[in-house]
Amino acid sequence: MMIPVILSGGSGTRLWPVSRKSYPKQFCALLREETPFQETLLRARSLGIKASPIIVGSWEHRFIMAEQLRQVDIEDATILLEPVARNSAAAMAAAAFLQADQDDEAILWFMPADAEISDLAALGEVLSQARQAAEKGFIATFGMQPTRPETGYGYIEQGPALAGVENSFHIARFLEKPDESEAKRLVNDGRYFWNSGMYIAKAKVFLSELKALAPDIYDNVQKAIRHNSRDLGFVQLDKEAFSQSPSISVDYAVAEKTRRAAVVPARFNWMDVGSWDAVWELTPKDEAGNAVRGNVFLDNARNCYVHSDGVVATVTGVSDLIIIVTQDAVMVSHRDSAQDVRHMVARLKKEGHSEAEQHVRVYRPWGFYESLIKKERFQVKRIYVSPGEQLSLQKHFHRAEHWVVVGGTAVVTRDQEQLIVQENESVYLPLGCVHRLENPGRIPLTLIEVQSGAYLGEDDIIRLDDIYQR
Amino acid sequence: MMIPVILSGGSGTRLWPVSRKSYPKQFCALLREETPFQETLLRARSLGIKASPIIVGSWEHRFIMAEQLRQVDIEDATILLEPVARNSAAAMAAAAFLQADQDDEAILWFMPADAEISDLAALGEVLSQARQAAEKGFIATFGMQPTRPETGYGYIEQGPALAGVENSFHIARFLEKPDESEAKRLVNDGRYFWNSGMYIAKAKVFLSELKALAPDIYDNVQKAIRHNSRDLGFVQLDKEAFSQSPSISVDYAVAEKTRRAAVVPARFNWMDVGSWDAVWELTPKDEAGNAVRGNVFLDNARNCYVHSDGVVATVTGVSDLIIIVTQDAVMVSHRDSAQDVRHMVARLKKEGHSEAEQHVRVYRPWGFYESLIKKERFQVKRIYVSPGEQLSLQKHFHRAEHWVVVGGTAVVTRDQEQLIVQENESVYLPLGCVHRLENPGRIPLTLIEVQSGAYLGEDDIIRLDDIYQR
Repeated sequence: MMIPVILSGGSGTRLWPVSRKSYPKQFCALLREETPFQETLLRARSLGIKASPIIVGSWEHRFIMAEQLRQVDIEDATILLEPVARNSAAAMAAAAFLQADQDDEAILWFMPADAEISDLAALGEVLSQARQAAEKGFIATFGMQPTRPETGYGYIEQGPALAGVENSFHIARFLEKPDESEAKRLVNDGRYFWNSGMYIAKAKVFLSELKALAPDIYDNVQKAIRHNSRDLGFVQLDKEAFSQSPSISVDYAVAEKTRRAAVVPARFNWMDVGSWDAVWELTPKDEAGNAVRGNVFLDNARNCYVHSDGVVATVTGVSDLIIIVTQDAVMVSHRDSAQDVRHMVARLKKEGHSEAEQHVRVYRPWGFYESLIKKERFQVKRIYVSPGEQLSLQKHFHRAEHWVVVGGTAVVTRDQEQLIVQENESVYLPLGCVHRLENPGRIPLTLIEVQSGAYLGEDDIIRLDDIYQR
Repeated sequence: MMIPVILSGGSGTRLWPVSRKSYPKQFCALLREETPFQETLLRARSLGIKASPIIVGSWEHRFIMAEQLRQVDIEDATILLEPVARNSAAAMAAAAFLQADQDDEAILWFMPADAEISDLAALGEVLSQARQAAEKGFIATFGMQPTRPETGYGYIEQGPALAGVENSFHIARFLEKPDESEAKRLVNDGRYFWNSGMYIAKAKVFLSELKALAPDIYDNVQKAIRHNSRDLGFVQLDKEAFSQSPSISVDYAVAEKTRRAAVVPARFNWMDVGSWDAVWELTPKDEAGNAVRGNVFLDNARNCYVHSDGVVATVTGVSDLIIIVTQDAVMVSHRDSAQDVRHMVARLKKEGHSEAEQHVRVYRPWGFYESLIKKERFQVKRIYVSPGEQLSLQKHFHRAEHWVVVGGTAVVTRDQEQLIVQENESVYLPLGCVHRLENPGRIPLTLIEVQSGAYLGEDDIIRLDDIYQR
């Protein structure tokens, strides 16, 4: 019995402005139609693993995860929600406790949700080797054969061979991200591998090592699982207990201390799609080395990655640039500086720019909205409500709203009335009225909301009733 | 008597995407609060020239010119409208004929509307020298002292001194834009000057030389002036006649053929603000040589010009780039390729992208509108109507409209009704109804228009009445 555990807690700031805290990279389809989150799930399924997956992710992303599962027809996943981010050791512990309640002999395959692996057959081969190590009580990880002196990854040094398991070794030590000369030495040496972040272990082995080596994590996460609350199909960890767990990676908390760590060298292409430079590498290029996406025009450009979500982008006479154009932010960087984008994001956040973490399009359990224009005394939004969904019953103290339906049919509650509003009809919601928007139909509802008033912040909302319990 | 003549017919494609055919560079405030068009007018006024200016510009830009004149309180200008662009010789001829009707001894100072000149005192000095040459029957031009081997300008070779006029010379010849090695030679030689495009001549002298050297231009422009139509304060040239004038620059048509050409060397900073590289040069820079405008964040950037009209733009680890971000287009270019932007614009135009020539914000005699979102079956626009103005009486065959007033007060004609619509009120205009929007108030009117229908093109409009006679 092997259970896929998808670790989906990353925030992906190096892929800003497409990836942001509110909608991070594992949910963004940058390379193909499926997102990395979806591909990670489908990969396990393709390898013949039939057990229901466990997903550990952020409470903030719960509706994104649910929607992306629905898109790829995965209906049996358990979504375990972290109320706060506590790094990989705590996330893995939560999944292990959840599984141990059912069967602590089960083998867990922990996978970060943002890696690129194209050779499924080769993955299957090392997976079965790692599984053998796990059966023997080891916590196995894949060591990826380095193909270049990468300074963006951690490394693992291989130790002596594991008795009785093919292609498996003790781990001599974990190495932090090296500088360039050190990275060159590691690649040439032959005993060093990239740390993939994937782990394979029995639930009970992982938990007993965690108990011995990081009891603080063990105790608090155990408490957080015991006091979980189940709601709308999600398993939510207890916030108070989980918050008290130390925030440490599994490498430091367990893997580099335990004598049960094993590394299984893997010789296929693997990539942490963690920066725009990596996206450039993985995208098909023209003869001059350019990879483009969207409404992009090049003239005399070389080795560039240019991505536009909508507006026309032109690029003339440059090389080795990354240019990302989204609705509310433009990022230009040299390819060699692709890793530094996160510093820019931190700076924008510090200076109070919402573009650092929030998107124009804001996803909600019922659909999404996006602001089209916001000025001193008015704002216009496009609102999309999925079939069968409804917004909360609410009121505002500082703004009135006009809703013009431009697609589908709405049922609008306005104080004591209930109105059916069809395409090309509108309704007025005076300041202070209690109202609700609902799409009872079989097709999406799209409307244009025109707000006017002295204060137009999202926090001017009193929710009186909400089917999503916000 | 000296009359300033502002030549405002340029289209400025090298400053795309800020400058576009529908709103070209002479009307864009890139360096200071005033636009080049306004600065050119104010410069003449600052030199003590009291005569009413003549402006020659495109019919398409008539309301932009009127609005920009209003902003700087110039009320006495005559605006001469070209129905089609026919280059500088025809534009100057039109102004000369207009003036000659009143007083053909008057001296005309022809000025392109897009040059940068900061030293007014020095300009005043050479202007009085050029004026002396003009009094003696010469067609004088300023020869700007070259300060670098510029390949983007034409050059003038100085001939023998003009008898009896200080600092004035015959012109030996005009030189086309040189290549770099030729440009170096010209700069070092000392007898070559940049061609400023400014000319100073008596109206009758200019016209008699034109008659002798380019009779086709003379005859057709004379006819276009004779059959002009005056309307809403504009003097519109007759389209049929003006279209038949050859489209040639004054340099080729007159100046390099006439024996009356004179050059007045000028030793102050002058710049044709014709490309983004020039804008970078003229904008104050930080220690690393970067000039920025708008919501821009730099990290480890050198010698860049970054301009954003709205959204956040971040720039990391690059040098010598020009990055221009507008609402509907992003342009990235190496500084050395700044001149090539026009090729990109030509390509976008050829491939049918309206961004090549049109802005999101479209100016109309009554104000402006901009599209906020356009999808299959709906479009949302923001509409701004200046106090006292009104749109045409119109109807649409394929769309219905909702208008929500978010600022000011509207008077709306809807078939037989007349409605007063105040802030926070809305009105519905069903498909086919005859309607008109009017701002009778003292403050601007802003409304959000939500269109819905099967076809949303601008050409679905029947104008039944229009105070601007469109």
